[in-house]
Amino acid sequence: MEMSFEEKDFFSCCGSIRFEKEMALASPFSSFQDAVTAARDIWFNKVDVNGWLEAFLAHPQIGETHSAAKVSDTSAQWSKGEQSTAFATATDSSLQELSEWNARYRQKFGFIFLICASGRSTDEILAELKRRYSNRPIVEFEIAAQEQMKITELRLAKLFSSKTNISSATNK
Amino acid sequence: MEMSFEEKDFFSCCGSIRFEKEMALASPFSSFQDAVTAARDIWFNKVDVNGWLEAFLAHPQIGETHSAAKVSDTSAQWSKGEQSTAFATATDSSLQELSEWNARYRQKFGFIFLICASGRSTDEILAELKRRYSNRPIVEFEIAAQEQMKITELRLAKLFSSKTNISSATNK
Repeated sequence: MEMSFEEKDFFSCCGSIRFEKEMALASPFSSFQDAVTAARDIWFNKVDVNGWLEAFLAHPQIGETHSAAKVSDTSAQWSKGEQSTAFATATDSSLQELSEWNARYRQKFGFIFLICASGRSTDEILAELKRRYSNRPIVEFEIAAQEQMKITELRLAKLFSSKTNISSATNK
Repeated sequence: MEMSFEEKDFFSCCGSIRFEKEMALASPFSSFQDAVTAARDIWFNKVDVNGWLEAFLAHPQIGETHSAAKVSDTSAQWSKGEQSTAFATATDSSLQELSEWNARYRQKFGFIFLICASGRSTDEILAELKRRYSNRPIVEFEIAAQEQMKITELRLAKLFSSKTNISSATNK
């Protein structure tokens, strides 16, 4: 069965306009795996460095819920869900420390700290932020892009799952 | 003998504000080699990816003389000098081809094709542009930054040489 999506569905998965348009051109996809293969090729080979920075802006700072760029309700909701473990394990002092390190990171690298947060506690995220802070800017830029791809894959899975549910409900 | 420079001298070498400010903080330098060591550390470890993109804008497209960003007369003049071999070996058709490939490159990567052009003919530059065009965006971004550093080193050498000349003329 081929899954058909709208452009804005892809933008909710990854906030780069080039990504959204190329995914729409590559669709429909015969499987989730096909969509992931296309998404990886587009993100790493076709989206340029400005597109990477654009997509990063669609995320809230880790530990927060509002992003710098205007995003869809779907994207905002997914982001909250991805951070649910972090929010559940946070204390006032760890949130405060996270906020300070977020600011240091942004000051050094010029974009927000990006991490695929699913299932990770605030302490784990903070340790990772501190570890990555010592990287060279170009090295960190590529790591952030890899984290973005992990987030995109999780979101594509949610997209496919929601369409399958709608489709089975319709076929009943 | 310690060489002292103004901030704007460093900006003429590399059009990133962060680079300019950090070089001013690191100066004065006791030798040209000290300045190059500081410049490399600042460019690769402290200037972020936005700063790299900012510096790229200070260059004219190869084969041309005007840059996207406003630059000093010194920078514009150095750029012409660096391209003197290219201009001397250019034909109407090679300039036309270069212009077309520049546009393709910019379309793919989101910044202009950057190369340390000193002593290179138009044909050599064109061959390099075509070869590099197949790179992934992030790979090409780092190569462009390395070319920027080569240009910066040549310009720092000119800066030191001009100050030495002024200084020996004053001491006569």
